[in-house]
Amino acid sequence: MENVSHLSCINCGKEYKPLPDRYLCYDCGDKGLLEVEYDYEKVAANWSKEELANTADQRIWRYRSLLPIEDDTPLPPLAVGNTPIYESKKLAEELGLENIWIKDDGLNPTGSLKDRASAMAVVKAQEADAKIISCSSTGNAASSLAGNAASMGGKLETVIFVPGRAPGGKLAQLLIYGANVVSVQGDYQAAYDLSAAAIKKWGWYNRNAAINPYMVEGKKTSVLEMAEQMDFDLPDWLVFSVGDGCTIAGAWKALKDLKEIGFIEKVPRLLGVQAEGCAPITSSFYSGEPLTVVDENTIADSIAVGNPRNFVKAIRGVKNSNGEMINVSDEEIYEMMRLLGRTTGIFGEPAGVAGLAGIRKMVSKGEIKSNSRVGFVVTGNGLKDVKNAREAAKEPLSIKPDLDLLEKEFIQQGVIKG
Amino acid sequence: MENVSHLSCINCGKEYKPLPDRYLCYDCGDKGLLEVEYDYEKVAANWSKEELANTADQRIWRYRSLLPIEDDTPLPPLAVGNTPIYESKKLAEELGLENIWIKDDGLNPTGSLKDRASAMAVVKAQEADAKIISCSSTGNAASSLAGNAASMGGKLETVIFVPGRAPGGKLAQLLIYGANVVSVQGDYQAAYDLSAAAIKKWGWYNRNAAINPYMVEGKKTSVLEMAEQMDFDLPDWLVFSVGDGCTIAGAWKALKDLKEIGFIEKVPRLLGVQAEGCAPITSSFYSGEPLTVVDENTIADSIAVGNPRNFVKAIRGVKNSNGEMINVSDEEIYEMMRLLGRTTGIFGEPAGVAGLAGIRKMVSKGEIKSNSRVGFVVTGNGLKDVKNAREAAKEPLSIKPDLDLLEKEFIQQGVIKG
Ligand SMILES: [Zn+2]
Ligand SMILES: [Zn+2]
Repeated sequence: MENVSHLSCINCGKEYKPLPDRYLCYDCGDKGLLEVEYDYEKVAANWSKEELANTADQRIWRYRSLLPIEDDTPLPPLAVGNTPIYESKKLAEELGLENIWIKDDGLNPTGSLKDRASAMAVVKAQEADAKIISCSSTGNAASSLAGNAASMGGKLETVIFVPGRAPGGKLAQLLIYGANVVSVQGDYQAAYDLSAAAIKKWGWYNRNAAINPYMVEGKKTSVLEMAEQMDFDLPDWLVFSVGDGCTIAGAWKALKDLKEIGFIEKVPRLLGVQAEGCAPITSSFYSGEPLTVVDENTIADSIAVGNPRNFVKAIRGVKNSNGEMINVSDEEIYEMMRLLGRTTGIFGEPAGVAGLAGIRKMVSKGEIKSNSRVGFVVTGNGLKDVKNAREAAKEPLSIKPDLDLLEKEFIQQGVIKG
Repeated sequence: MENVSHLSCINCGKEYKPLPDRYLCYDCGDKGLLEVEYDYEKVAANWSKEELANTADQRIWRYRSLLPIEDDTPLPPLAVGNTPIYESKKLAEELGLENIWIKDDGLNPTGSLKDRASAMAVVKAQEADAKIISCSSTGNAASSLAGNAASMGGKLETVIFVPGRAPGGKLAQLLIYGANVVSVQGDYQAAYDLSAAAIKKWGWYNRNAAINPYMVEGKKTSVLEMAEQMDFDLPDWLVFSVGDGCTIAGAWKALKDLKEIGFIEKVPRLLGVQAEGCAPITSSFYSGEPLTVVDENTIADSIAVGNPRNFVKAIRGVKNSNGEMINVSDEEIYEMMRLLGRTTGIFGEPAGVAGLAGIRKMVSKGEIKSNSRVGFVVTGNGLKDVKNAREAAKEPLSIKPDLDLLEKEFIQQGVIKG
């Protein structure tokens, strides 16, 4: 990895060799998250926009000049990345804007942005000579890990720890990918503790976005890709929903990288959006106090993280970008699922669309100007959570099979003219 | 549409002008399905592989030289097409083959191959000056139509007729896309009849793959794309699951088009695969008798079509390719969901993977040689039908939070060594 200089502790600054299974600073423990530092001069000297434009690989590996991977590590074949970006005048109008660009990361192979991190985990696990990758999760981290590992065709296994109450639907995707799913009789903490003990005892590779410094590097490809898709003229605001903080930390990392190597001039302001029922990062962002762990009271389960481990990187990233944080209600999230669906044909999961409600609030407060250019990433596919989609959706028209009745109803609803 | 010559009736051969809302032959009624005929000389003269390779649009519109669309019709923005294709040695081995190529059409924007037809419906509806597109379905045809129409940002509305028993989960996606969903108190036939009456009365555009000749043209892009992705060296066998017959009819159309314009030399043999519990096309294919309507007894709901309307085009296509038909059981379909997931990281819905079971049967019968090159398209995303995925999947290991217990279980299962 000639492009990588070292890993640095975000707490004390201590430097480490970029080993694939180097997770935390020895001195700082849990607070000692590590950051991948690049030799930007070398990257800039060896890479250009023209070379990128001529790269055949459409997957995230096209950005390998800014990724911490060895030249010869076998890449998981799943087509992670190259998700579409759409400009929608109609959605912009409804949000009080002139322009908005929506990137649909729910079209990644397992249905979420987290494929970008999990593909990276599959690479780093091989570099660490691990045969098993593990995490504790019932969500997109787990399914993306199981899918990306499976795509290696048997070279890697996954062990996923879930709490006993995990809904069957969420387990189905994991089990179809052939993951070894351990349903721990107890709560999430019990599942997490058993996973930590097992990972330590058997030396499995740890795909925990909270402590694995390479996960943020995978996630940042969403913004690298958006930059390329927008011809390196990024919007004024870039908006992400925020749970454990890794995704928006990745967004900041991408912006920093692109600026340092001269691919972009201006850095967008980041807007981080949390759910009102679980907003510890927003609270800490505005109070300046250390983070307080909170309950998880929101339907947006992918951002329902009461004890986010990556809040330092997240808050630092938002502040560095001169950005903001804001909270939105579950009702507003449901409304955005409907609005996004009917104006763009994108079906997002609750956490995946929460940021849109934040945009609308910021516009109505005048903090985002109506003529600002705004970019937003839908982080997960609505098919992941059909139960909440059903809650969000209006009721269908239930009617007897009678054309006259239908005519009357449709005239009333304005579908047809009387 | 300089590339299109005319529409021809598949029953009597009568020719029609290619109007956007020309559905059936006047003389032959329901039997008079129409086929889009191209002026292949003109297409070949104006188009080349090189030009295609240099086309920036990654969506299905890159094949517009072989699509029946006007130059100036606004295209729906959703990123339909450009789905990934994977070669999997591991899956091939498990099926008794040396090579297999899997194209994952479940990664289309609304989760199925049917986006290709619905995007075409959105184009043709505009050419017909329609403001409303309609169909009766609870499945992928409906959700893809609702999504692609929504992406036009309010220019088009959809009216979807569903039977009263339609499960809430399937309705959620439609409602989020803002479709006008009419839940007809009655069975599927009641919903169909009311939709037919409404479409006729109000002149809505009819997205019914069974009678709309342009739907097959959209579906064929899956094979056009596969051909391009494989550098115009298609496999010996191309395998599709078969429900109403439109998809495999589209596959044949693509092969015919590519051969006629000289983009391919050799035409693959088509293998059509139906579910044992609903296999009217296979029966007619082998008996040579007219199709007999059957019950719909299979978990693969997207191919559970007891009264398929496109069987003539389907059977003709398979026969023209010197192909075969075969049936598979629900148990085999479940097994293929697991096999595909754990070997490739692709999560397919039951109908989407049924063809794999057909491949394995044909290999074990010696009808597909182990050194044959085989191509297969996964037609729908497994997230569309999590209930069946749960049925297909094995149970997770349920365990107390105890590392010693876990060790004992994992040694027994072979996950770790003792
Ligand atoms: Zn430290
Ligand atoms: Zn006719």
